[in-house]
Amino acid sequence: MKLLENTIDRIESLDEEMMAKARERMDNLVKPSKSLGKLEDIAVQLVGITRKINPVIDKKAIIVMAADHGVYENGISSNPQEVTFAQTLLFPKGLTGVCAIGRVSGAKIVAIDIGVKGEIPDDAEVIKRKIKNGTDNMAKGPAMTREEAIQSLEVGIEIVNQETKKGIHLLGTGEMGIGNTTASTAILSVLGNCDPLEITGRGAGVGRGGIEHKVEVIRRAISVNKPNPADAIDVLAKLGGLEIGGMAGVMLGAAANQIPVVVDGYISTVAAIIAASIEPKAKEYFIVSHASAEPGARMASELLGMEPMLNMGMCLGEGSGAALAFPIVEAAVSVIQHMATFDEVGLKI
Amino acid sequence: MKLLENTIDRIESLDEEMMAKARERMDNLVKPSKSLGKLEDIAVQLVGITRKINPVIDKKAIIVMAADHGVYENGISSNPQEVTFAQTLLFPKGLTGVCAIGRVSGAKIVAIDIGVKGEIPDDAEVIKRKIKNGTDNMAKGPAMTREEAIQSLEVGIEIVNQETKKGIHLLGTGEMGIGNTTASTAILSVLGNCDPLEITGRGAGVGRGGIEHKVEVIRRAISVNKPNPADAIDVLAKLGGLEIGGMAGVMLGAAANQIPVVVDGYISTVAAIIAASIEPKAKEYFIVSHASAEPGARMASELLGMEPMLNMGMCLGEGSGAALAFPIVEAAVSVIQHMATFDEVGLKI
Repeated sequence: MKLLENTIDRIESLDEEMMAKARERMDNLVKPSKSLGKLEDIAVQLVGITRKINPVIDKKAIIVMAADHGVYENGISSNPQEVTFAQTLLFPKGLTGVCAIGRVSGAKIVAIDIGVKGEIPDDAEVIKRKIKNGTDNMAKGPAMTREEAIQSLEVGIEIVNQETKKGIHLLGTGEMGIGNTTASTAILSVLGNCDPLEITGRGAGVGRGGIEHKVEVIRRAISVNKPNPADAIDVLAKLGGLEIGGMAGVMLGAAANQIPVVVDGYISTVAAIIAASIEPKAKEYFIVSHASAEPGARMASELLGMEPMLNMGMCLGEGSGAALAFPIVEAAVSVIQHMATFDEVGLKI
Repeated sequence: MKLLENTIDRIESLDEEMMAKARERMDNLVKPSKSLGKLEDIAVQLVGITRKINPVIDKKAIIVMAADHGVYENGISSNPQEVTFAQTLLFPKGLTGVCAIGRVSGAKIVAIDIGVKGEIPDDAEVIKRKIKNGTDNMAKGPAMTREEAIQSLEVGIEIVNQETKKGIHLLGTGEMGIGNTTASTAILSVLGNCDPLEITGRGAGVGRGGIEHKVEVIRRAISVNKPNPADAIDVLAKLGGLEIGGMAGVMLGAAANQIPVVVDGYISTVAAIIAASIEPKAKEYFIVSHASAEPGARMASELLGMEPMLNMGMCLGEGSGAALAFPIVEAAVSVIQHMATFDEVGLKI
């Protein structure tokens, strides 16, 4: 709890003075004013985050939090639960979607077992921070205790603190967890105050009962647990999951360490809503990436109040959309570094 | 004319057999089926274009066509016409928006004077293929003769043929030309059969008469010239511009040489509509990049029948959006190269 509190205390708003300078430079670059749209916004944001007129983003990492969900036993997914375990082992080997996409910008993939069911082998190069063997079944009772939820946030913070010591410049969030669109949709239903039917999708593959059954399970989880929408940690604890808490922790940690963090799709956006609910200033450090194909994604973006840049119809998770957005962030930095101003080239328009 | 005809003759549809194989591999990668959305489509398309199961896209270039517009004298832009000339000199120096963004993926920027008003100095490293000193004023008569329009297409084709000999793997289109949103909107009004009022925007800065005046000039150009909507070359000739023809030529040349070509925003999309109208099979080689902030952009995308991936609110032109999409194409290739299949890792879901 102390780490979480200290971290929240460390989160400061962006440097407005630096941002004003950056915006002034943007307006003087050899282009029509504002014509680079969101790329200019990102450039200004990076200056505000890093407190540097020439931000550097050489070292990049996607933090992939992996965990299982007790609600799996209710048949909400068509995938074997073992996929979480098996897939987690593939991240350090560079064989998954986020690994392939991360290569384009030279991003490191850091996989964390924060709650995978089963024992990850020692030689797997997965960071072992298991809180428990998956959440408990939210359809029967709380997915986690409040302490476990805070612990999941703190694992995310600790990972970022370690990466910060190694000199990381840009972070992205990712996850692996069979059943986690069910948990995310439950959280979003509560925080967005809507019926799960409006936002429930197929995830990575819906179980035999179809979307209707998934909706019914989510409704039950909410009515059994009665999470308090004004208390994001309560919602996280009661509906899960460990990886969602871990990602929210990564986002809070990134903000505390003044590191920009790229938010992936649906599940990451739900984690971002939790993080922003815990500390609203954290949001100033977020860059949202892609619009997931999950039906709840639009509402999640609206609730977060940030519009995604990429429209790829993707719904893989793992941080794959965040990795795809890394080169866009690099482009924003390159615009700062390499475009001339009107003064520099002796032009005036 | 002969080069254009030969080029059209050389354009073949994508290799369906190779694409079926690529799609099969996509379906076997360690991810839920179709979960990489458009990234999978691009991967399959690249295989179909290159006829290689493992496409390579190491060598990349943005071809920037620069030209002026006679209709400038009607006061449709707030920018001095000399900006076209001045900005054209900045491309080889690496100082403009597309240069900065292209750096991220190591793309070469190739600038071509296809019709800039004034004499580009010999030491400028701009490829000199000037057809004339800007188009004639479309509000008074045809912007170009039919021969000049064909010549503009052929310049684009020749540039691609040269780049092909140098081993280029991926092309993007870009332009520089004060007044070219006016020409593009005129073309789009004719090919899309709509009133210019519905799609006219501010471009890089609208002239004193505002958008209403710009609309009026476009209406006049259409009524004076009566371009034939069924004949894209006639529309191009009568409304211009030289750089739009050049870009359409690049797209036809790319298709003929089986090279993927990334279409930039508004003006490039209008050029793509012309290219696809001249030879519909060419479209199979196009990858569209970003949704321009210009009001006509949505209609242009709809007319082309391709939905952009990036939603950045950009409207710079130069090929800046195409350059921003290059890493996405790289990501598609990386997915083919680096993701494991379920068989390879002994998983089954």
